[in-house]
Amino acid sequence: MEIKVLTNIHKANDDIADRSRALLDSNGVFCLNVMASPGAGKTTLLLAMIRRLREKFRLGVIEGDVSSTVDSEKIAKEGIPVLQINTGGGCHLDANQLSGAYPEMPLADLDLLFIENVGNLICTAGYQLGEHKRIVIASVPEGDDKPYKYPNMFTVVDAIVVSKTDLIPYMNYSLEEFTRAVRAINPSVPIFPVSATTEEGMEAWCDWLEKESAR
Amino acid sequence: MEIKVLTNIHKANDDIADRSRALLDSNGVFCLNVMASPGAGKTTLLLAMIRRLREKFRLGVIEGDVSSTVDSEKIAKEGIPVLQINTGGGCHLDANQLSGAYPEMPLADLDLLFIENVGNLICTAGYQLGEHKRIVIASVPEGDDKPYKYPNMFTVVDAIVVSKTDLIPYMNYSLEEFTRAVRAINPSVPIFPVSATTEEGMEAWCDWLEKESAR
Repeated sequence: MEIKVLTNIHKANDDIADRSRALLDSNGVFCLNVMASPGAGKTTLLLAMIRRLREKFRLGVIEGDVSSTVDSEKIAKEGIPVLQINTGGGCHLDANQLSGAYPEMPLADLDLLFIENVGNLICTAGYQLGEHKRIVIASVPEGDDKPYKYPNMFTVVDAIVVSKTDLIPYMNYSLEEFTRAVRAINPSVPIFPVSATTEEGMEAWCDWLEKESAR
Repeated sequence: MEIKVLTNIHKANDDIADRSRALLDSNGVFCLNVMASPGAGKTTLLLAMIRRLREKFRLGVIEGDVSSTVDSEKIAKEGIPVLQINTGGGCHLDANQLSGAYPEMPLADLDLLFIENVGNLICTAGYQLGEHKRIVIASVPEGDDKPYKYPNMFTVVDAIVVSKTDLIPYMNYSLEEFTRAVRAINPSVPIFPVSATTEEGMEAWCDWLEKESAR
């Protein structure tokens, strides 16, 4: 008797994500899935990106959180379309949740759509949402050894933003050590050190994003 | 027809945890489950606790990580018993994993056993491991709004350690705001601001732990 082994356990999720991506493509929307630990600076980076990109692109944000609207209220103050998804305990966003969220956004009036995923360095990495690119924000205070301990996240992403670089002088942190840890599992992923406070590194990071969105 | 609804979905886990707790009790071991986001300073706090408590108590550590032995190598350098559990992608420790780990530790020769859980502010909160008390470490760089966004974690724990308080001068962080956010969901949990670097607050935190372990 042949025993069937289900290898792609995320196929149902990925099929829904593919349909969502087609919907975004038909509206000319480029979508970025932003993942990170709790408190790595996802919302702060998004706010800095919004201020830098808003003259050139029509922007929108979908906010994922276990609970609260703390982050979406900050985004709404910038006057751009924002939608909050509360997972009610769930530890990541999935394609099903997003397939219900995209039609609630004014897609025809958007160029770039940012998804702020739930703060989680493990579970979020397994779920495609219909995005075009995925990034992880790794904050300086988390330490330079995180790629060794959460290898899947640092393997699946298209770019890594190192946030809060203005805190390096006050910490035992080495960007060289961090880069070495990343390169051991992901030889080619681009790494962008950024401080949303001093704006250092923001131009290089936004340039990459702009180029990717134009492809 | 009556439809049976399973309400305590963690009952199987909790039953195993209860048996492990009885094993620890029979050996006179007090066990602390340490939870936090990635990079909140779990290992650094444990190392500071070990140095402070090792003259008075016989200590042991069980390290939980998705991958690597980075943390357990640091603990082993202190010359105390340490066991590494690698979840291989799993986003939290569970009672089953721990029931296999406790007998591998020299329980008859321990007073305090620390479990460093996987870095995750969501999934870890749902799983008892056989521990006597559970804490979360909330680091200053994560921001003072985390209790609003991860309410379950801040509800289930017996104590909260605020780590990296030496970074407060360089950040937009208010300990009063953080305390207010905690109190909205957990009116009585003790909060211990601590810097493992300057040792400030370590005495009050270790006093609490010592008292709890003596009950």
